[in-house]
Amino acid sequence: MRFCVFGAGRMGERHIANITANKRAELAYVIDSVHDRAASVAERFGGRASDAPSVALEDPTVDAVIVASPTDTHVDLIIAAARAGKAILCEKPIDLDMTRVEMCQAAIGEYNVPIMIGFQRRFDVTHLAVKHAVDGGEVGRIEVIKIVSRDPQPPPASYIAKSGGQFHDQMIHDFDMALWLSGATGKVTVFSMASNLVDPEIGRLGDTDTAQVLLRFHSGCLCHIDCSRRAVYGYDQRVEVFGSGGMVCSANLNRTGIERYTSQLTVARDRLYDDFMKRYSQTYELELEYFIDAVANGYAIEANFASGKRALLLADAARQSHGTGAAVVVDLG
Amino acid sequence: MRFCVFGAGRMGERHIANITANKRAELAYVIDSVHDRAASVAERFGGRASDAPSVALEDPTVDAVIVASPTDTHVDLIIAAARAGKAILCEKPIDLDMTRVEMCQAAIGEYNVPIMIGFQRRFDVTHLAVKHAVDGGEVGRIEVIKIVSRDPQPPPASYIAKSGGQFHDQMIHDFDMALWLSGATGKVTVFSMASNLVDPEIGRLGDTDTAQVLLRFHSGCLCHIDCSRRAVYGYDQRVEVFGSGGMVCSANLNRTGIERYTSQLTVARDRLYDDFMKRYSQTYELELEYFIDAVANGYAIEANFASGKRALLLADAARQSHGTGAAVVVDLG
Amino acid sequence: MRFCVFGAGRMGERHIANITANKRAELAYVIDSVHDRAASVAERFGGRASDAPSVALEDPTVDAVIVASPTDTHVDLIIAAARAGKAILCEKPIDLDMTRVEMCQAAIGEYNVPIMIGFQRRFDVTHLAVKHAVDGGEVGRIEVIKIVSRDPQPPPASYIAKSGGQFHDQMIHDFDMALWLSGATGKVTVFSMASNLVDPEIGRLGDTDTAQVLLRFHSGCLCHIDCSRRAVYGYDQRVEVFGSGGMVCSANLNRTGIERYTSQLTVARDRLYDDFMKRYSQTYELELEYFIDAVANGYAIEANFASGKRALLLADAARQSHGTGAAVVVDLG
Amino acid sequence: MRFCVFGAGRMGERHIANITANKRAELAYVIDSVHDRAASVAERFGGRASDAPSVALEDPTVDAVIVASPTDTHVDLIIAAARAGKAILCEKPIDLDMTRVEMCQAAIGEYNVPIMIGFQRRFDVTHLAVKHAVDGGEVGRIEVIKIVSRDPQPPPASYIAKSGGQFHDQMIHDFDMALWLSGATGKVTVFSMASNLVDPEIGRLGDTDTAQVLLRFHSGCLCHIDCSRRAVYGYDQRVEVFGSGGMVCSANLNRTGIERYTSQLTVARDRLYDDFMKRYSQTYELELEYFIDAVANGYAIEANFASGKRALLLADAARQSHGTGAAVVVDLG
Repeated sequence: MRFCVFGAGRMGERHIANITANKRAELAYVIDSVHDRAASVAERFGGRASDAPSVALEDPTVDAVIVASPTDTHVDLIIAAARAGKAILCEKPIDLDMTRVEMCQAAIGEYNVPIMIGFQRRFDVTHLAVKHAVDGGEVGRIEVIKIVSRDPQPPPASYIAKSGGQFHDQMIHDFDMALWLSGATGKVTVFSMASNLVDPEIGRLGDTDTAQVLLRFHSGCLCHIDCSRRAVYGYDQRVEVFGSGGMVCSANLNRTGIERYTSQLTVARDRLYDDFMKRYSQTYELELEYFIDAVANGYAIEANFASGKRALLLADAARQSHGTGAAVVVDLG
Repeated sequence: MRFCVFGAGRMGERHIANITANKRAELAYVIDSVHDRAASVAERFGGRASDAPSVALEDPTVDAVIVASPTDTHVDLIIAAARAGKAILCEKPIDLDMTRVEMCQAAIGEYNVPIMIGFQRRFDVTHLAVKHAVDGGEVGRIEVIKIVSRDPQPPPASYIAKSGGQFHDQMIHDFDMALWLSGATGKVTVFSMASNLVDPEIGRLGDTDTAQVLLRFHSGCLCHIDCSRRAVYGYDQRVEVFGSGGMVCSANLNRTGIERYTSQLTVARDRLYDDFMKRYSQTYELELEYFIDAVANGYAIEANFASGKRALLLADAARQSHGTGAAVVVDLG
Repeated sequence: MRFCVFGAGRMGERHIANITANKRAELAYVIDSVHDRAASVAERFGGRASDAPSVALEDPTVDAVIVASPTDTHVDLIIAAARAGKAILCEKPIDLDMTRVEMCQAAIGEYNVPIMIGFQRRFDVTHLAVKHAVDGGEVGRIEVIKIVSRDPQPPPASYIAKSGGQFHDQMIHDFDMALWLSGATGKVTVFSMASNLVDPEIGRLGDTDTAQVLLRFHSGCLCHIDCSRRAVYGYDQRVEVFGSGGMVCSANLNRTGIERYTSQLTVARDRLYDDFMKRYSQTYELELEYFIDAVANGYAIEANFASGKRALLLADAARQSHGTGAAVVVDLG
Repeated sequence: MRFCVFGAGRMGERHIANITANKRAELAYVIDSVHDRAASVAERFGGRASDAPSVALEDPTVDAVIVASPTDTHVDLIIAAARAGKAILCEKPIDLDMTRVEMCQAAIGEYNVPIMIGFQRRFDVTHLAVKHAVDGGEVGRIEVIKIVSRDPQPPPASYIAKSGGQFHDQMIHDFDMALWLSGATGKVTVFSMASNLVDPEIGRLGDTDTAQVLLRFHSGCLCHIDCSRRAVYGYDQRVEVFGSGGMVCSANLNRTGIERYTSQLTVARDRLYDDFMKRYSQTYELELEYFIDAVANGYAIEANFASGKRALLLADAARQSHGTGAAVVVDLG
């Protein structure tokens, strides 16, 4: 499968490295609005560099595109790629504006190309083991879902300014996780509380760094999401699914299995991972594998456009709730 | 210190057993509205049985009373005991009706007797270690507090009917925990979501069994409380305090240190405790020790009447939020 | 059951405290060769103080004796108590000299009184859970048993000098644990290695502080025991039973359930217990309960004289192996 | 760096896959005495297939060889490769016969090529973290080292028959681990006990499946190694280093971070890895990286020929001790 990658930044480079290492994938193009950046990455990994998406989209030998460019370019690239008949793997979020997302959905409908949103956590072996356990009935009826996502340190202010805010940038993954694990449909009540405690600069930009959301699904199942932009002990990623039959958790992974005993403490593990790239390193590889499989075999993709839209629906509701102080009801369909 | 215990039920009997085992305490009276119940307990543990509180309150050799009778008798007994100049240890909640609590507070003000509310978790060695770590600055500025309280199985419908509801009966301990750990004062925003998922009978009584609350303290610190009336793996009690300097947790205690490895799993621990009595067994002893110390030495009691009132304030707000679907702001003073 | 306790030192006082707290037990006598010590303890806990064992042994109202005096007095007191028809709970070891142990066994045979050796670990809830799991077939055929016993700090030189050496003083508990868990009979091969690494003073007294023993039971099951006189992280007590069906472990218990996360580490638990008295606090109570039950109901006592002798047999063999550098074969009967 | 791999079996294929994935490595030849096997692997991974080592050794563009052929071919291939001036990475053990190992050492001395023995565990991130902690002084003076190595299931009888026995085939890694962690030199006392408990067929072949070794290093440090050919819960790999300053452990790694809570148990993790290939998957990649670095930069290789010989020395001594029942003293130099 021949790939074109849009965006030669950190995320794009990760996908490019995985394409290169994957025997079934071939890197055809690296496209970036900054030509030199595309060229530099292509030099290291191969592929043809360009700043013009059309070069790749018009090449009939290109089978698939990965959209890892800035969020505000996603919709246009998705539409262009769909029109060109390419399979699409697009980083989250689709867009920060639901109107544009719906416009995009309408625009690509007729082309019917495979499209997948980059909710890579769904491919993490631990989260996946939890999903399988839950689907296999191990917790019985789901009553409570709890998710913790804490970054090791806040991104720079320049990133925050364009991020769309904590609910859309950071918590979007957790909204997808909640929807994926619960399989929820229908109406959901959303309430959020958030503070600016970590970095005053984030507050000055009108954003928060400590945010929590409560969801009440149609089934009565309650879901709690807890995000922070800074955890000094490393990248904290936990999931807990509790129900009538028990509980299954996705516990934090440590970088190594070392345990220390001193005169002060026992069984101390090392710090958690320094960033999501390291924590989810293998996960991005598995995501690519899945995408290739799904496109090659025509499987229905689970993390599809509608999934991306539903996660955005919850992020919008959470932002609104934070603004008004009131709960918001949305319909997941 | 000579004690009178009001209430010869399960809770009263626990206090009576601890009084008997404590070298500095002596059981003088067991009072229960059902005389036979008082007599039966007194026969096993000593003390004089009666169904008349006045018998004990008029005895000048009685130093202290423990109020472990039904909740709706607490206020009257507190007032009577205060008037009689006895030190008071009263089980939570003070009352289900804030008006009566305030009336009680006004009524006992002039007598100035030592009064302590039975928030026994404050004396648990693990929770206390967390409190000391937090007060010692180990987590830095507190940003997030999370509390889980799940009972092994729901109480009988007859208990639910008189319990005051999940927020007042079960979550009251967690509200106190949140206030104790945070040291919060001033305004707090309270939002709750709750469902009836465990036992339909509880729903028919107008109560819930799966409840979650979000608090936002004046400092911006967010707090989440997660209660359930049923956890098949036992009595689940967890606390997590997260801040700028790290995290300190009160993890679940297992009944034994056994670990199992089979062809299916590894490092499996045994079930958690079967009830709060076993989990907090030692805690009740330490609570009594503290009470005796505080009364004997005239220490200011931390878990005092005002603490009981503040916890009730949050329970009232949570119930109101559940009813209206809107957040409620209360002032902790 | 009316008790006489021989020895008013630390161990005797522990038993005395437990007798006092036990509703079925009554403290009749405290006997110590130093009369003042007996008197001081009796003053606090009750009972009649004396320096003459005969005073208690001649009292027909005394049902049982606990022998917690220095090791070299055990045999004489056991014989005297047996002759007086008292039930006996004797601290380990019976004696450091196998000849005297066998003489004692012969001397008390005819009196047929209940006799129990103070291997209190058999009553620890965690070790007991392991024993039940093993007996219940959870590990299948036992192939490997591993035991770790490390003290927080070495005892004073004065204690070491009279202790009988590390194999007899410290490892005797582990030998009993190995025999209890395995149910081994017949021939066993014993090999030991030991060093003086912790405290040079211990070496000057001809003793070791770091000792390991390998046992090969008749069944082919291998057993490893690992003792140290000093672990800076606290009192380390672990047992592992491995077999054809899996593994069951008795893991270390922490003093509290606190967990810490800092910029350096995660999931750090607190130090282990500071001494065996605290680690096995409840265990001594359960031991006494069992003894009372067994004597009252005529149960066959498991930790009996023969158990004490078998543990001593292994300690003797380990000491011999350490001296000669060769393995030693002994017959457990 | 252009590689020739000798041996197209499971181990050879693992190295070949890693060479293919490594940007600094290129697969030049796949050599196997069974030509078809070499051809089949070369077809999948590239490289030229042959059954003649000389083809590769005479090719001046080949920089390095990996010896992953049967143990009895190692010495001849090492000598031939050294003579041809190739860098060598040889799987353990060098040979089962110390005479041949010494002959080999003498024969290759003059060629002075880089040679590394495949003790891949030294590159495992957890074991390495333990090594760094120990070298950094975290445990103070080392007093005790303990190693557990248990395979998920025994190899087939055909493998056992040629394996050299449990001490040489399985425990050789643990001997190297003990020597690496301790940095021991000089005399060491070796004692072993072993049984045939897992598979009678292994016993019929004169081998054991449950083996334990005690080592006493010159420093007085004691070391225990515990091997089994079968652990139903998966591949059990643990290391513990204990000393005057505390303890550092290399704990088992689980395949995922899932934790289960049911009505019977809590905090249950999943099975351990199914084999050493999966457990040490990343480790083999890091080993190759290190080898390439060391050869390219002329670093002194730590896991060198002498290391391989010292591990063999201990395996020989352990086998001898098992045969005679007596301890054996060897000199590590």
